[in-house]
Amino acid sequence: MNSINKVKFGKVPLVFPIPIILAGALVRGKPNFETLGDVGIMGIKPPIVFISSGQDHYTNIGILEHETFSINFPSTKLLSKTDYCGIVSGHDVDKSQLFNIFFGELETAPMIRECPVNLECKVIKEFSIQHRHIFIGDVTQAYVNEEFVIKKEDRPRIVDIKNLDPIIYGLDNRYYKIGERIGVGYQEGKNL
Amino acid sequence: MNSINKVKFGKVPLVFPIPIILAGALVRGKPNFETLGDVGIMGIKPPIVFISSGQDHYTNIGILEHETFSINFPSTKLLSKTDYCGIVSGHDVDKSQLFNIFFGELETAPMIRECPVNLECKVIKEFSIQHRHIFIGDVTQAYVNEEFVIKKEDRPRIVDIKNLDPIIYGLDNRYYKIGERIGVGYQEGKNL
Repeated sequence: MNSINKVKFGKVPLVFPIPIILAGALVRGKPNFETLGDVGIMGIKPPIVFISSGQDHYTNIGILEHETFSINFPSTKLLSKTDYCGIVSGHDVDKSQLFNIFFGELETAPMIRECPVNLECKVIKEFSIQHRHIFIGDVTQAYVNEEFVIKKEDRPRIVDIKNLDPIIYGLDNRYYKIGERIGVGYQEGKNL
Repeated sequence: MNSINKVKFGKVPLVFPIPIILAGALVRGKPNFETLGDVGIMGIKPPIVFISSGQDHYTNIGILEHETFSINFPSTKLLSKTDYCGIVSGHDVDKSQLFNIFFGELETAPMIRECPVNLECKVIKEFSIQHRHIFIGDVTQAYVNEEFVIKKEDRPRIVDIKNLDPIIYGLDNRYYKIGERIGVGYQEGKNL
C-alpha cells in the first residue's frame, strides 16, 4: 500500500463529484438563474446550505437586495437548459422565460417547477473571499415534486433518489448520472 | 408543466448527491479522520474549499491547533472503513492505524494514501454557525494516485473520473456509485 505513488496536481480544488444546481434570485423584478457546482450542506439541524457565486454575477444583485435565494436541482432531462444557464449571464440575457416559476413563503426566491427538488433559502450570513461571494442560507422550506414522494410514518419521504435523476459534475468538466446503490449510511462500517 | 404539484418537505437541506470524504487532522500528535458530506468548492482560482464539522467533533481540535486539514476522497472499496469513521469518534477510538498515512508540504495535515485523491488545505477562515464549525481552506496541494494520471499538454490530467470510483451520498442515507457520463460542461447548452 505504501507503494502507491502520488502525483502533485497543484493548487486545484478537486472536490468531486458535485451536484449541479440552478441558483435562483429575483433581480430587478425578474427571476434569474445561474448554474453552480459551488453548493453544499453546512448543517442538517438547523438546515444550513451555501452557494458561492462569482463576485460580478448577476444573480448576486437580487440575493443582496432581498436576502433570499433558491437552490433548484434539475434532472438530466434539463441538462441543456442547465448548461445554458452557466454559459450566459443575466447581465446579457433574460432567463426568466426558460422555466415555469413558482414562489414560496419568502415571496422573493423564484423556484423552478420542473426541477424535482427546490430549496427556499433565507440568507443568514454572507461574505466575500477573493473574487467569490459566499451566501449561507437557512432552508425555510424544501419542495419536492409530488410524484417522487410517499408518506411514511406520517412524514413525506422521497421514494428513490435515482428517480430524481440528478445531474452530477466531475472535476473533468463532464456531467454524469447517479449510479447504483451500494450501501446504507451508518451501517456499512458497523462490523469493523 | 404548471400541473406539477409540489409537496412541502419542511426545513430540510436536501442537497444531493454529495461526495463523501474523510477529513483529516493531526490531533494530539496522531492522525484522525472524520467522515463528512458537508464539503464543497467555494472557488476554483484561487482554490477554496470548506468542510463543516460538528462543534464537539474531535477533528476540530487538530484543525484549530495547526490551522491545516486534509480532504481525502475514498473509492467505494473503502466504503466500510469510511462509514466506520462516521460512526465512531476520535474522542473514543484511535483511528490513526486504519489507513496508510502520508504528509505533504504543510506537515500537519495527514492524508490517506489509499484514497485516490487528497487535498492538503490551509485554513484561511473559520467560524461557527449554530452548532457547526466551518473551516474554509486554501488548497495548497492536490495529490492523485499515479495510476489515474496521464500527462497532456505537459499538465497532469485524470484519465477518467469513473476510475476514481468515488462514494456518493444521497439525501436518503444511501451510498451510490457514479453513473454514466452524459455530457460536457459549457457545451450542452450551446445551441439553445
